[in-house]
Formats: sequence, structure tokens, C-alpha cells
Amino acid sequence: MPVELIGQESSNPEAKATDLETYCFNHTMIRCKDPKKSLEFYCSVLGMSHLRTMELSAAKFNLYFLGYRQPGDPENHTGEGNPIASREGLVELTWNYGTENDADFKYHNGNTEPLGFGNISISVDDIDAACARFEDQKVEKLADGTTKNIAVIADPDGYRIE
Amino acid sequence: MPVELIGQESSNPEAKATDLETYCFNHTMIRCKDPKKSLEFYCSVLGMSHLRTMELSAAKFNLYFLGYRQPGDPENHTGEGNPIASREGLVELTWNYGTENDADFKYHNGNTEPLGFGNISISVDDIDAACARFEDQKVEKLADGTTKNIAVIADPDGYRIE
Repeated sequence: MPVELIGQESSNPEAKATDLETYCFNHTMIRCKDPKKSLEFYCSVLGMSHLRTMELSAAKFNLYFLGYRQPGDPENHTGEGNPIASREGLVELTWNYGTENDADFKYHNGNTEPLGFGNISISVDDIDAACARFEDQKVEKLADGTTKNIAVIADPDGYRIE
Repeated sequence: MPVELIGQESSNPEAKATDLETYCFNHTMIRCKDPKKSLEFYCSVLGMSHLRTMELSAAKFNLYFLGYRQPGDPENHTGEGNPIASREGLVELTWNYGTENDADFKYHNGNTEPLGFGNISISVDDIDAACARFEDQKVEKLADGTTKNIAVIADPDGYRIE
């Protein structure tokens, strides 16, 4: 790849112009074992919308993009192009085909050894009301956070949602 | 906690009102070994701004919130309150004091066993120009993604940035 980049640079003096102010933090990718359960959780429990799907059947995985709906967001876009490339605050779920059928298969949530990723965090209007609703939906509350006004639940793979 | 929630519900019939449309995906938390290196990377290399710091010295950890600046964002807010609670697209770096001094200490990026978290993904104006700039800054490109128009670099802890 360095060769390609250097070549482009010398043949096109404009090639290196990139404006950091156009950058945005588009999404966070986590792997999910069973997309049915995860899509149900992120949409029905957390209230996100399913904005885009990429089916990469030759490589045996699908990608699902979810987020809190904003004006102009697509309804599960499946075609060419990426109409949500300029959005911030999306979750990308990667499903590798077949993991849902393996009873012993489990992803690592990053909060036991080896440590790494911690959680994704959702801001809500009222923490007590949100927790009461989660409880109604039989979502287990893992713990109250170390900081006040924070609660922690788990998604179907055990990833922490703060 | 169930007791507290149930109590609140019975004493206040409004307690369970929560509006999912107010929810937003505020941030993704990953642990970092050395905040100096990570803040330098996320701000100078990726172009994010350092919006907030929470120093929890009694618990021996700090939290750093970073994101692409939007109108009204604070300049490294350190006081009470959370002026960025309604934002989407933030990174929260958790630094546990002392990890930076342990040469053997290393966080897990989720992409080797045990698998879990995959990456955070930044949208840029021009992928080739962005890569050329990263190369100028001596940031190693790990791989081109499996989808065209994607490249992958690593942050100082080895977390993948797509």
C-alpha cells in the first residue's frame, strides 16, 4: 500500500488534502452471536432503529447498522452506497454465520481478563424511568455504575450498556 | 434496586415515563494504558477534541471524553455536570493509574481470541488522502478492509480504527 499512496501523491499534488473537520466518529463495531436477538434488543429494548444491512454471504457474515433515528436516516438500507456515512453514534453488529447454532459459543465483553473494551453508553431522559422500563422488559440490571446517575445492563452477548 | 424502583413507581405514577426518542448513543468506552499517548493520538492524529475529563483519584482512574467538535462543545470540561450528555459519537478513554509504567501491560483489542469488540470507525472526506496523512504521521496501516473504501489503523493500545 505505501507504493500506491506514494504514487498517487506524486501524480496528483492534491491527493493529500484532507480536512479533519469533515471527520466523524461513525460507528462502533461489536460481534454478535445471534442477530435476531441482538436486533430485537437494540431496537425494541434500547429504542434504536435498524438503518442499514450489508449481507456479505460469500464471506459468510452480515453487518447491521443501528442508531437513534435522525431526520433523513434510511429504513434498513440494503443497496449500494452508504447513506449513513456522515452520521455519528451508530452501532455496527457483525454476525458470522452459524455462531447462533453453537450453544457453547460466546463473545468476550472486554470486562474480564483480558481487559479492553468497556461498554457503550446511552444517554436517557430519566435514569430511574429508563431502568423501570428495562425491568418491565425483563432486562437484568448488572450494577449501578461507580458514578451516580448511571446504571448498567447487558446486551444479548453480554456487552455492557451503560 | 428493584425495591427502590418499585417504590418510586407506586408513589409517583409518572415515574415510568421515558421517551425513547430522547435517547442517544453518547459514547464508547475503551481502556487505555497511557493517556498521554492516547490523547495525542485521538486529538493530533485523528483530529478529535478533548471535551471532558473526570479525575477519580480516590478510585485511581481518570476518564477522558473525546469527539469531533460540534458547536457548543466544551473545552476539556472538568467541573460538575456533563455538558456533553446529549452528544453522540464520543470516545471515553479509561485510564487506570499505573498501567503506563508496566512495560508488559497490554489491553486486548478484541480481534484475537477471545473475540468481541471489533473497532471504532471514523468517516473521512477522502480515504486515500486520509491514509497519506496518517502515513506522514508514522501511523502504521494494518490492512485494507474487506470492503472497498476502508482502511484500518491502530491506536496506541492496538484497538482498531477503521
